Amino acid sequence: MSEPSATPHALERLTCVIPAGGVGSRLWPLSRANAPKFLLDLTGSGDSLLRATWNRLAPIVPPERLMVVTGRSHRDSVAAQLPELPCENLVTESEPKDSSAAIGLAAALLELRDPDAILGSFAADHVIRGDILFQRAVTTAVQAADQGYIATIGIHPSHPATGFGYISCGQARGDLAPFDVYDVTEFVEKPDAAEAEAYLARGGYLWNAGMFIARASVLLDQMALAEPELVASLREIAASWDSKRGAQVRERLWPMLPKIAIDYTVAEPAAAAGKMVCVAAHFDWDDVGDFASVANLLTRGRGTDLAVLGDGAQVLSDASSGIVVSESDRLVALVGMDDVVVVDTADVLLVTTKSRAQDVKQLVSRMKVTGGGHLL
Amino acid sequence: MSEPSATPHALERLTCVIPAGGVGSRLWPLSRANAPKFLLDLTGSGDSLLRATWNRLAPIVPPERLMVVTGRSHRDSVAAQLPELPCENLVTESEPKDSSAAIGLAAALLELRDPDAILGSFAADHVIRGDILFQRAVTTAVQAADQGYIATIGIHPSHPATGFGYISCGQARGDLAPFDVYDVTEFVEKPDAAEAEAYLARGGYLWNAGMFIARASVLLDQMALAEPELVASLREIAASWDSKRGAQVRERLWPMLPKIAIDYTVAEPAAAAGKMVCVAAHFDWDDVGDFASVANLLTRGRGTDLAVLGDGAQVLSDASSGIVVSESDRLVALVGMDDVVVVDTADVLLVTTKSRAQDVKQLVSRMKVTGGGHLL
Repeated sequence: MSEPSATPHALERLTCVIPAGGVGSRLWPLSRANAPKFLLDLTGSGDSLLRATWNRLAPIVPPERLMVVTGRSHRDSVAAQLPELPCENLVTESEPKDSSAAIGLAAALLELRDPDAILGSFAADHVIRGDILFQRAVTTAVQAADQGYIATIGIHPSHPATGFGYISCGQARGDLAPFDVYDVTEFVEKPDAAEAEAYLARGGYLWNAGMFIARASVLLDQMALAEPELVASLREIAASWDSKRGAQVRERLWPMLPKIAIDYTVAEPAAAAGKMVCVAAHFDWDDVGDFASVANLLTRGRGTDLAVLGDGAQVLSDASSGIVVSESDRLVALVGMDDVVVVDTADVLLVTTKSRAQDVKQLVSRMKVTGGGHLL
Repeated sequence: MSEPSATPHALERLTCVIPAGGVGSRLWPLSRANAPKFLLDLTGSGDSLLRATWNRLAPIVPPERLMVVTGRSHRDSVAAQLPELPCENLVTESEPKDSSAAIGLAAALLELRDPDAILGSFAADHVIRGDILFQRAVTTAVQAADQGYIATIGIHPSHPATGFGYISCGQARGDLAPFDVYDVTEFVEKPDAAEAEAYLARGGYLWNAGMFIARASVLLDQMALAEPELVASLREIAASWDSKRGAQVRERLWPMLPKIAIDYTVAEPAAAAGKMVCVAAHFDWDDVGDFASVANLLTRGRGTDLAVLGDGAQVLSDASSGIVVSESDRLVALVGMDDVVVVDTADVLLVTTKSRAQDVKQLVSRMKVTGGGHLL
């Protein structure tokens, strides 16, 4: 690490922001509007994904430099799960506006608290194993961010996954850190199986874990190049946040904000402009995108085990793969059902297969239109 | 039909006996020790299989000539479903002793009431469609029974089923009835697919629906050739049935009776001895042996429909086959699950496939040994 400069040590200016948004509809009926993915325990650890994210970040920064951005309706649940979170760091949105607005608002608030603030954004609903490797990667990313770069943390692929985006890395940046930092050449969307194989064979590709670390002002200025009005609104909202007219400003501006992912407003244009660097990390990471992912996590990748999630779950099965998620203590009996996904909740029973687990999202979309919305 | 003889018209001496025994473990967890198959509505008609059996027989004989033999623990349920059944015709067993004892006891009781009594035995848990054809077949069988034969009713196969036994028919017996009566050459056990195809190609084979019609005394005398002590015990039990010492005799003798199917004590030896005839019938018949059968019944054999059973069942599915049985009103959502069997009860959820539906029996057997018996 570099020596302390005139400003406080970079890590001491880091605030970790946890955007806690998406419902995770591919995990329905376990995930619901009022029980979004980040509030669920998908690993059987006893902690929700949000709480696990907090636990992972708490050794890096103190509670007053942790911030959660979430929907208004989840405010109480988040506060209950994170009692250490100072209430001024629990930022709520009146309606979801995707990641540019959520992370941008956090950046605008932090920029006002400290013009040199560094923001690290970490999803509330991913699973990471290898906390020391994670901390090391964050520390390295913060150094790069302090130098004015927008840093991301990419994960060395363990297999040619088709469910994640990839980061194409270029030149090593020994000027920023002795190890593991590279220019980002390009962000690429989820590949098909052949492309994924090719990425791994070619080398230089990392999984995009959606983590961004940058000075708050750098992040906002970059975003402003793509979405100037959005950033102007966010800075106006932040400026009035604690004032009497704050609520009024939010009510006026927030509903007008565009819904757009930060990948498009910051990551991709910054990469194209040579302002994006990537820290290559070796920890285990999964975005737990569907029940097949949950099964793989629970069995630690062993495809020959049936995964079971649920404190009272009772399963009688001849299956050598698949997953049973149960919120009750009734018996789930499986005969001849390899690779099945059974999710047994109080009001919905879902049965599908690991290979069709992604299609739960379409089912949920259809239910929004055709009825059954009260079950979502 | 033949002209009335010295004894009353044969049909007027017919008592229809409904042995209501087996649990139907391949239909677990819908069927349970305290909710055996015959008490279930498996057709969505609103009637249990037992009640439907009664409704089918009631146009043939009056209530005083209908008799049910069932386990002591099912007495109240049977009485509730069949309020017309005279209480002296509700015969209970202290423990199950298979069909020779159950039907033999009925025969012994009827023989005492009327030495010329004719007994027709019809399973409580089969499904029949085509009541007029059924009545016609019974009437024909009763004529043969009146002549001293043991008659069965065989069903013209609609397809090469492997789940049923077959009856090999010989010579037409125009001397007994103008149509449809044949000597029985042999009873054959459930064949494999190739054998079943061969039976249908060769012709002369009918499905064995387990119906027996004979004079009560003829049936007992035939059974006595194979199991003399059994029949002696049954006749002793029957003789004391209504007397003060009846309970004592039953308690002494019933537990000693051998468990043996009537196929072995009556049907097969009678066929070998040339005393068995078969009425060939064209009604739809199914023993509803497993959930695949239930699915076929509900969709009337259309393999392109998902079958749903349960008053409140709510199903959202892209499946073009299979069956959902639900005892609740919660949503059952299926994604990519053709040919699945889902049985959703208060304390057990079963998931299997139509092709593995038979194996539910083994699961139940295993549970008896390894635990979970309270769920059976």
